[in-house]
Amino acid sequence: MAPQRATLLQVAQRAGVSRSTASFVLAGRHLDMRISEDARQRVLRAAQELDYRPNLMARSLRTKVTRTIALLSDTIASDPYAGGAIHGSLAAAVARGHLLFIGETEGDPVVEEKLISDFLDRQVDAFLYASMFTRYVRLPKLLRGRPVVLLNCLTRAAKPAQHAVVPDELAAGFSAARTLLEAGHRQGIHLVGNTGGGVFASRERLAGIREGLGEAGVRLAGVIDCDWWPDSAYEAVRRALAEGLVPKALICLNDRVALGTYQALREAGRVIPRDVSVLSFDDSELAAWLRPPLTSISLPHYQLGWEAVEKLLGPPSDPVVTRLPMPVRLRASIAKPAVE
Amino acid sequence: MAPQRATLLQVAQRAGVSRSTASFVLAGRHLDMRISEDARQRVLRAAQELDYRPNLMARSLRTKVTRTIALLSDTIASDPYAGGAIHGSLAAAVARGHLLFIGETEGDPVVEEKLISDFLDRQVDAFLYASMFTRYVRLPKLLRGRPVVLLNCLTRAAKPAQHAVVPDELAAGFSAARTLLEAGHRQGIHLVGNTGGGVFASRERLAGIREGLGEAGVRLAGVIDCDWWPDSAYEAVRRALAEGLVPKALICLNDRVALGTYQALREAGRVIPRDVSVLSFDDSELAAWLRPPLTSISLPHYQLGWEAVEKLLGPPSDPVVTRLPMPVRLRASIAKPAVE
Repeated sequence: MAPQRATLLQVAQRAGVSRSTASFVLAGRHLDMRISEDARQRVLRAAQELDYRPNLMARSLRTKVTRTIALLSDTIASDPYAGGAIHGSLAAAVARGHLLFIGETEGDPVVEEKLISDFLDRQVDAFLYASMFTRYVRLPKLLRGRPVVLLNCLTRAAKPAQHAVVPDELAAGFSAARTLLEAGHRQGIHLVGNTGGGVFASRERLAGIREGLGEAGVRLAGVIDCDWWPDSAYEAVRRALAEGLVPKALICLNDRVALGTYQALREAGRVIPRDVSVLSFDDSELAAWLRPPLTSISLPHYQLGWEAVEKLLGPPSDPVVTRLPMPVRLRASIAKPAVE
Repeated sequence: MAPQRATLLQVAQRAGVSRSTASFVLAGRHLDMRISEDARQRVLRAAQELDYRPNLMARSLRTKVTRTIALLSDTIASDPYAGGAIHGSLAAAVARGHLLFIGETEGDPVVEEKLISDFLDRQVDAFLYASMFTRYVRLPKLLRGRPVVLLNCLTRAAKPAQHAVVPDELAAGFSAARTLLEAGHRQGIHLVGNTGGGVFASRERLAGIREGLGEAGVRLAGVIDCDWWPDSAYEAVRRALAEGLVPKALICLNDRVALGTYQALREAGRVIPRDVSVLSFDDSELAAWLRPPLTSISLPHYQLGWEAVEKLLGPPSDPVVTRLPMPVRLRASIAKPAVE
């Protein structure tokens, strides 16, 4: 006893919004269309109450496509935070009436080739080629010429052959600098992290920080070099403080580095943010849990996944690299520098 | 120019192991067959160097199945830690020559029904029905009578109709008690967390703790009630200490609760483990990062996923509830109680 299908107009009327607002919400475009959270909730509730769903099966029979896409990544499912990219891809795929396969290559080209063949055998319509860390990649041969969007990675081609969606790390570095400058910091700003050059995020963040500070005639006072983990950051910051460093602000390259930095500062009796301001990147759940809560620049995992699927399944357009904004989550770890 | 296919025997010879050892490793059964990590690495390397792969496509043509399975969960991809279950399922599915769809219902039965229909339209061979938190579920009507394994959930049926794979939370509680008893604790052992009764893990852990302590004639001294988050635990423990509580050991219901507990203890000047031992559940990455590193009882997300797929695709057997062990990860947060 299938209930009569509700129309989009009925959903809009029940939610008290226009037909286009309802349509944007259900396509997940509330953010770029600046639709209020309240209106969005009303539309979603109405759609659920009326059991609204787009007529997928009919469409599928007409178009002879499988309406499946594959998310092929290096190790995205194993990273606690990058899971947001799967979640966003999944939500966008379902919103467009597609189902999602996932496959992990663990960076092994043999496994990758095998997985791609297997997906092709099952006639997936299109691919997301994804990376856990933002980086440059070469598209596997088997995927060339097929519908592919790069998720959190990009090629070095001057004119991209596929859409790529990456976080705007350069602008994030710039925001970090602006955030400290606006709080009144001009001296004793140090970076904590690995600037070895190999890591895309690290390189772009550093360039953005230098640019942002430079615009105000301010220079980075130094770099406390360490790895991407709490232990390494703890050791490096502890040593720097023991050697007499008196930083006014520390920019940590991610929240894990910030955790180690917090531990070293606390041990040395330096109070955050009274003695030292701390700022970080990623906005993982850790950031909100530290004491004091950590100001961190958000990696938009969910939005990366969502936007990549939109590029893959939305109206065709010329391939470009889309850089998604990384919003600053202001918390209590930043204050005006103490007067000497 | 396809290279000649390597045989399993060639892989075994190159790795210097027996054919069965190589076979177990490639089927991912190294843990239950107790194969050394060293031998496992040699086999994997040899398989990669020889480009070894099982002849899947030929098999698939013979059997007329799609060799795809679907992991249908409430919100498993959105939880930072439960992602391990996806990872384990994926690895086991690929090891058995299957590809994996994922779908998230966010607990909405309408979405669930729609997703199941969509998967059935694409002729998936079998389903993993998964939950982010261990809990009792009712199997959706559309899945009854089909090949299904419950992943991190179970039904209330006296005689289960499907395999279910869950963590052994009762034994984990027992291990928690034993760990403290072995360190010499007999008094002032408090639980920190939500024991409201609604949560499966919480109920079973508490029962296990009581049983473990009880065997040694020891009783839980009290419960510091709080929610599952650091803030809530911080507040509750802070208040308890301010009211004069002098605990000797705190069992936290998860690592997030332990984080808040650490913060409250530190603020009150209680040193872990000198003044108070702390033990927790989950063994998320946080546990290793705290100072001192936190002893935590591991939630085997990866193994849950792996084992559920093995039950789904392995040789048929009578449906049972399989409870996977939760190993204790001993770290520096537990010591002998101080002599009064």
